[in-house]
Amino acid sequence: MCGIIGIVGKSEVASALYDALTVLQHRGQDAAGIATLDGNRLRLHKGSGLVRDVFDQTSMLALRGSVGIGHCRYPTAGSEGSAEAQPLYVNSPYGIALAHNGNLINTEALRREVFEDDRRHINTDSDSEVLLNVLAHELQIQDRRQLTPDHIFKAVAGTHARCVGGYAIVSMLLDYGVLAFRDPHGIRPLVLGERDTATGKEYAVASESVALDILGFRLLRDVAPGEAVLMTLDGRLHTRQCAEPAKHAPCIFEYVYLARPDSMIEDVSVYKARLRMGEKLGEKILREMPDHDIDSVIPIPDTSRTVAGPLAQILGVPVREGFVKNRYIGRTFIMPGQSERVKSVRRKLNPVGLEFRNKNVLLVDDSIVRGTTSKQIILMAREAGAKKVYLASAAPPVRYPNIYGIDMPVTAELVAHGRTVEEVERMLGADRLIYQDLDDLVWAVRDGNEKLADFDTSCFSGEYVTGVEPTYLADLEFARSDDAKSQRRQAG
Amino acid sequence: MCGIIGIVGKSEVASALYDALTVLQHRGQDAAGIATLDGNRLRLHKGSGLVRDVFDQTSMLALRGSVGIGHCRYPTAGSEGSAEAQPLYVNSPYGIALAHNGNLINTEALRREVFEDDRRHINTDSDSEVLLNVLAHELQIQDRRQLTPDHIFKAVAGTHARCVGGYAIVSMLLDYGVLAFRDPHGIRPLVLGERDTATGKEYAVASESVALDILGFRLLRDVAPGEAVLMTLDGRLHTRQCAEPAKHAPCIFEYVYLARPDSMIEDVSVYKARLRMGEKLGEKILREMPDHDIDSVIPIPDTSRTVAGPLAQILGVPVREGFVKNRYIGRTFIMPGQSERVKSVRRKLNPVGLEFRNKNVLLVDDSIVRGTTSKQIILMAREAGAKKVYLASAAPPVRYPNIYGIDMPVTAELVAHGRTVEEVERMLGADRLIYQDLDDLVWAVRDGNEKLADFDTSCFSGEYVTGVEPTYLADLEFARSDDAKSQRRQAG
Amino acid sequence: MCGIIGIVGKSEVASALYDALTVLQHRGQDAAGIATLDGNRLRLHKGSGLVRDVFDQTSMLALRGSVGIGHCRYPTAGSEGSAEAQPLYVNSPYGIALAHNGNLINTEALRREVFEDDRRHINTDSDSEVLLNVLAHELQIQDRRQLTPDHIFKAVAGTHARCVGGYAIVSMLLDYGVLAFRDPHGIRPLVLGERDTATGKEYAVASESVALDILGFRLLRDVAPGEAVLMTLDGRLHTRQCAEPAKHAPCIFEYVYLARPDSMIEDVSVYKARLRMGEKLGEKILREMPDHDIDSVIPIPDTSRTVAGPLAQILGVPVREGFVKNRYIGRTFIMPGQSERVKSVRRKLNPVGLEFRNKNVLLVDDSIVRGTTSKQIILMAREAGAKKVYLASAAPPVRYPNIYGIDMPVTAELVAHGRTVEEVERMLGADRLIYQDLDDLVWAVRDGNEKLADFDTSCFSGEYVTGVEPTYLADLEFARSDDAKSQRRQAG
Amino acid sequence: MCGIIGIVGKSEVASALYDALTVLQHRGQDAAGIATLDGNRLRLHKGSGLVRDVFDQTSMLALRGSVGIGHCRYPTAGSEGSAEAQPLYVNSPYGIALAHNGNLINTEALRREVFEDDRRHINTDSDSEVLLNVLAHELQIQDRRQLTPDHIFKAVAGTHARCVGGYAIVSMLLDYGVLAFRDPHGIRPLVLGERDTATGKEYAVASESVALDILGFRLLRDVAPGEAVLMTLDGRLHTRQCAEPAKHAPCIFEYVYLARPDSMIEDVSVYKARLRMGEKLGEKILREMPDHDIDSVIPIPDTSRTVAGPLAQILGVPVREGFVKNRYIGRTFIMPGQSERVKSVRRKLNPVGLEFRNKNVLLVDDSIVRGTTSKQIILMAREAGAKKVYLASAAPPVRYPNIYGIDMPVTAELVAHGRTVEEVERMLGADRLIYQDLDDLVWAVRDGNEKLADFDTSCFSGEYVTGVEPTYLADLEFARSDDAKSQRRQAG
Repeated sequence: MCGIIGIVGKSEVASALYDALTVLQHRGQDAAGIATLDGNRLRLHKGSGLVRDVFDQTSMLALRGSVGIGHCRYPTAGSEGSAEAQPLYVNSPYGIALAHNGNLINTEALRREVFEDDRRHINTDSDSEVLLNVLAHELQIQDRRQLTPDHIFKAVAGTHARCVGGYAIVSMLLDYGVLAFRDPHGIRPLVLGERDTATGKEYAVASESVALDILGFRLLRDVAPGEAVLMTLDGRLHTRQCAEPAKHAPCIFEYVYLARPDSMIEDVSVYKARLRMGEKLGEKILREMPDHDIDSVIPIPDTSRTVAGPLAQILGVPVREGFVKNRYIGRTFIMPGQSERVKSVRRKLNPVGLEFRNKNVLLVDDSIVRGTTSKQIILMAREAGAKKVYLASAAPPVRYPNIYGIDMPVTAELVAHGRTVEEVERMLGADRLIYQDLDDLVWAVRDGNEKLADFDTSCFSGEYVTGVEPTYLADLEFARSDDAKSQRRQAG
Repeated sequence: MCGIIGIVGKSEVASALYDALTVLQHRGQDAAGIATLDGNRLRLHKGSGLVRDVFDQTSMLALRGSVGIGHCRYPTAGSEGSAEAQPLYVNSPYGIALAHNGNLINTEALRREVFEDDRRHINTDSDSEVLLNVLAHELQIQDRRQLTPDHIFKAVAGTHARCVGGYAIVSMLLDYGVLAFRDPHGIRPLVLGERDTATGKEYAVASESVALDILGFRLLRDVAPGEAVLMTLDGRLHTRQCAEPAKHAPCIFEYVYLARPDSMIEDVSVYKARLRMGEKLGEKILREMPDHDIDSVIPIPDTSRTVAGPLAQILGVPVREGFVKNRYIGRTFIMPGQSERVKSVRRKLNPVGLEFRNKNVLLVDDSIVRGTTSKQIILMAREAGAKKVYLASAAPPVRYPNIYGIDMPVTAELVAHGRTVEEVERMLGADRLIYQDLDDLVWAVRDGNEKLADFDTSCFSGEYVTGVEPTYLADLEFARSDDAKSQRRQAG
Repeated sequence: MCGIIGIVGKSEVASALYDALTVLQHRGQDAAGIATLDGNRLRLHKGSGLVRDVFDQTSMLALRGSVGIGHCRYPTAGSEGSAEAQPLYVNSPYGIALAHNGNLINTEALRREVFEDDRRHINTDSDSEVLLNVLAHELQIQDRRQLTPDHIFKAVAGTHARCVGGYAIVSMLLDYGVLAFRDPHGIRPLVLGERDTATGKEYAVASESVALDILGFRLLRDVAPGEAVLMTLDGRLHTRQCAEPAKHAPCIFEYVYLARPDSMIEDVSVYKARLRMGEKLGEKILREMPDHDIDSVIPIPDTSRTVAGPLAQILGVPVREGFVKNRYIGRTFIMPGQSERVKSVRRKLNPVGLEFRNKNVLLVDDSIVRGTTSKQIILMAREAGAKKVYLASAAPPVRYPNIYGIDMPVTAELVAHGRTVEEVERMLGADRLIYQDLDDLVWAVRDGNEKLADFDTSCFSGEYVTGVEPTYLADLEFARSDDAKSQRRQAG
Repeated sequence: MCGIIGIVGKSEVASALYDALTVLQHRGQDAAGIATLDGNRLRLHKGSGLVRDVFDQTSMLALRGSVGIGHCRYPTAGSEGSAEAQPLYVNSPYGIALAHNGNLINTEALRREVFEDDRRHINTDSDSEVLLNVLAHELQIQDRRQLTPDHIFKAVAGTHARCVGGYAIVSMLLDYGVLAFRDPHGIRPLVLGERDTATGKEYAVASESVALDILGFRLLRDVAPGEAVLMTLDGRLHTRQCAEPAKHAPCIFEYVYLARPDSMIEDVSVYKARLRMGEKLGEKILREMPDHDIDSVIPIPDTSRTVAGPLAQILGVPVREGFVKNRYIGRTFIMPGQSERVKSVRRKLNPVGLEFRNKNVLLVDDSIVRGTTSKQIILMAREAGAKKVYLASAAPPVRYPNIYGIDMPVTAELVAHGRTVEEVERMLGADRLIYQDLDDLVWAVRDGNEKLADFDTSCFSGEYVTGVEPTYLADLEFARSDDAKSQRRQAG
């Protein structure tokens, strides 16, 4: 995942972009960057690491200008962090900077087209660089004498026509302003806000509404699927639907795990959706274990804490903080002659012994992906003295890869892939494993906005709203496998 | 506050010390250091910043040895971070490294003695450097032919006789091992643990038991007030009471706020103590507001979350996560021409609007010190639409300075100093302010270990167990005041 | 000045490029960079500072590939180091990296053309970025189906047709190879070499032949004025004359000061040319001071040492090392409360007192530009006890600005501008000042290669071989003035 | 070798110490450090690398005070750079910082004494740390009530009595001032200077007089062998002879190679001494080759350039610059798949081909140690076309190790060890090899100051003025051998 932000303001924007990136940082801690428009010069600073490590006073002062975009990155599909941090930049035509959240699934075909037909060199494996060059080419073939919003929206339509996948884009055109758009299915989120200042209105787009909140922007609405939003240097807002009508299918994983609880996505409060996930999950557990012997509900921090409250209430048992999260995890050093290291999960979580001794506990997590952490946590609970350890997941079994920008392991590494719930239960060593039903998950989100008919639920259902080539999935398996990663590392 | 750790092991200890410091990091994020004993050489690496930033592969590899100590620091009494990171080192006699948690209140007199009588130069303002040189001098005047545990314990007794304050010390003597001791009142915490390995027993001391947990050491017991613990290179443990009997008075603030919930201090679970604080506080609120109109209890993250559970249960209302903490707070840059910055509290907490709109909320915090943050949070709750905003504090009013190693503002900046509860309530803009009673707080901790007769409760009661010169408090006021800080900064 | 290097090899070239840059470092110590071709990926690393500081093991290992270019930079015309280090890169068409030594004098007009007609954004003040985009555009308008050497040479011809100034260029085309060319007058130097390896011939181009020497390449010849040299990935060498015939006018300052003595430029040994400058200068001095009372000739290190030998022989006096150059000059810190600093020239040179006491000395320098250093050196010689201090310059009076890539002060700051030799003599405080005659300087160089009919001698003569707009010179005066520099610094 | 400097001034001295270290940098490029006295606080900054890299504005500003010492280091006897940079510091007694040029030959015995008798821990292999602790102990056993110059001079006498070797020391005592002294034989150089200011006299000591020159201090005289110089904070100068009379034997290698030509050592101009070395060497060559066929004399830069002038004059042939030194040597990277690297000597020197082709050349070097470089240079001269290559050395054959602080290879690696001149000639591949005679070398130096009766010429003669244990030499052979170095590196 990544977080993106774009602002067309009336005064210097660098520190606002910086603040926005810090509240979007949960979407990507791998790299960060900001580009601003300083007269007719692009100012750009980016690097590896957390926002607070990438920028210092000198780099911030160089990011002059009242218009800018920002990005924080989490590595996606097969990347090893070797790809450049974003925003990316091309100088022809006009000068375009771009930042991207999501993933294209026809990158390889586009890469060939872009080089052979458009004679544009792509220097990384990044689909974002491909996307930037597709957009650049579509802008280049517009009428060259005078670039109007109409030309720009046509270029976006051309981009939609060529790109397949889930994507939310914010880009900056030198001399024009900030352009943002979202894929035709609206898989990845993007919201629009405005703020009044003494010298006029300012506009902003962001991955999540918290970024607008913290800057004092009012949330106007979500950018619609396939819609483009152009905020020009003169302070005007232009919007247009640039894609053919398509099924609106926002990614349901944003609600389960990715987004901050204080965000609104598609008019649904993420926090409220999680409370409802807790209710539904509690009801299911009560149905399946009507005479349960659970002494307490213990959330695995941090996300599942919200889910745990209503769940525990329905079960009639207290929530207890059985695990304390270590907020200052250090690096793992390879040291000669050292005795065995702390288990990796122990470096992240420490059990509060008294909460487990001689108790039957229900652990709650937001989702179970590889299962390795869950297995270690269950073992840790038993070592701390628990009599029985039940595990509940606020999401259904994760059985298929995500291809729209969420970094997930290969299918073979998903613990629920090709296994029944009982088999997973045994793998993890739980006394009982209860998954949320997919219908209940969908209900929990949809109850916040009845207009949402569909969601991208592909990692649970295996159904991909964009369609997908079988060869793509096969290649993905290889690219994300640990073998492939170590090959790249050696080569890199 | 600071965190300290010491290990006498059977194999390389650098990575264990590192891991321990990461789980003690909540006690100090300002600087960190590790010293190890590599044959007859001291290896030392330290620096400013978080543990994860101070150490890299190269520095870790240089920290060879199976014996070592570590430290993480929070600035105390009047310091501006100018003092050196710890462990500190002197080469005469023997070679001694030392790390310290706490504060001496007769530093100035000791500094003169040490220079004039002992001819030892103190190169910083740090009371830790004074303490190290007092210990060094007491060791130097022992019989020089053969240093025995007896000599070392006499030197500790000499140190206790000269030093006044709260302190927990871990030090390393070249060619001997690790020596740890605690002030005669046992104000600052220190625990002792052991671990069995194939090649024999390993011992460790640490500020909090979580550091032992994560390394797989068994918690043996707290080091007793005035006791010294000597872990020699041959793997033996020597202990001795080195101070005259004195009132045992552990710092009650460790339970309120400083310690991790998963720690045991003086045989009391910090987590359980906080649950009991919630109970007692709930009962008081119910007494004072028997017909309360509270809709929900909203903890101010993170510490008060534990308190909020039982409190809400007693009031019969739900706990709601009304504030989301920003985990990735960035720096505040001074930028030319920028519009007004995000309010500082907004950078740390974001309200979930739906949890406030048209509701009467009871905010819970662990304690109220300056009151500036509480005031902003109450305002933020009102702006989010709250009808009534009540505030409860798990600790009594903080009215007096801490002189035993907790960094607190000067008396004049304590919102409760010289004010009634009603006056503080008005200052903060709360509809109602309820403080825990001191007796209830003491009960909440003592209920975990009936043997604890007394506590250091000085910041609530103004009673200092060591006694204190009025001039010391007056000097402290000046040293900690903002005026003094800015003078030092200019000079520094 | 800058130094450039390009190699099409049969095995990894990064370390060869690095070594070449270290021997070209005298041409620019401000920034350095290397780009290599790794399959169809460009690898690029560059930064501010000396070659040895810019590259480390990690960055070198990332510069994979058997084809690459390198650059070291000295700031030119009005720049403040704000421009990016080179090589520069554009991804459309094909992917082109470029490094440049020289200066264009129609940059502003080209910048407008490039943006308005070619819709290419130039993001810096650098004429090199303009030049890269002109070349990119000329390549883009070639037939797009199949790029041949013919197309590439046409693009170079198009570039020559648009660019005015002195320039030597090395560039790398992804998928094609390395392209190098030189301005139609051959103002800036560029040589071509080859090396045999077990797997075939390797080719290289470089600013000076020393770079070829150190890598074991044979010097084939100078690249001709207006000629382009294309070294393709298949190891073939293509060359073509791409400009209309024009007067060949190599920069004579290369021989006076810029180039290393061990270089061959236009088949002339720089070392030998300097020996001849010494002869001619000696003859002139003997003519003007037939009964001279000179005791010794003292070169001002390092360049003039070569000149001093034959000069002294003709005068019949010994050469003495009166000045020792400090090889480890440090920074100048601004310190509060310090007493007066060492004079800047003293930080560079220290006089050997015994060589001056009661002697009549003839100081020899390669050239006199601002005159401030000469004035201080003369004073230093007097303070060391010299009776008479004569000064000789191996170059004629510098009276006009250089516009072809040598960083020189504005006209008003040239001590000889608008002054007679006698006036300069008085300004500098010399007992006698003797300049080389321009004809003698030209003879000294031309004697090495009779085919050289003309030279760029503009800073002595004011005659510019390319022609120059009066407004250009006026703008230049402003851009290079100290006022303009301090304005840029505040803005920057 | 190392360079040392100490100043007791009337205003801030940090930048003066910095400037002095830059002109002493030729004595050691490995590490650098400065300590100042800021009231009763020691300020210290040091690190690895060149002076210009170790200090920045922040570290310079922190070095407050009008009294200070500085050091630049070259690794000596068996060290691998693992030892700490200097100045070193102990806090007991008083606080003492110390910087050292030279080498002790009874370090191991002293190390034991210092630990066992004085109970002082030495944490490195450095003889400087031993020396500091010997001095500290000698100060500690003086009367403790009132430290007077008399006590300090007694402590120096005690230090001389215990330390054997060649050493020049500058140290700083907190609250007292700067103390400098030189070993009883005066092997390593140390000079004293003074400067008048508006507020009184300032004093300085330094390894070489150039450091005084550049700061505007007048050279008063050399510190005498065994003498101590105490410059107190009140601006007074105290001096005393602290050692028994001993043979004065300054290191003759300072004149041959180590010192800057513009320095005066023991009242002898290094530059003049080198001119005389050239004369004597020329006379010897003329005696040995009365009908020589030498075409030109080519110095191997930089030191031998001074020698070459008079030598060539005596032979009646010109001096030619046949080699150009590369001033910007880069690092050697280990790169996979690269073709053979540039020969290491080619990275340092480039031949000017025309000066060798068909010529008989006499190369001149200051000395020949290992011979590997000479061998490569002779080969390079032949490859450049020389007919005959003669080699002359301004110093006699180097046959024995230096034990007084000059870093030299083990005896077995000295090309002249156990070989006749003819054998060395064959090893190096010279057509003729001529060494200076030791008597001539001594004469060349002594001619500048007839009072100098003796010199340390041990590396030529094998006679050590301090006496030396055979076991010491044997251990040294092992410690300096490449085997031992690689062992340390693996351990380190």
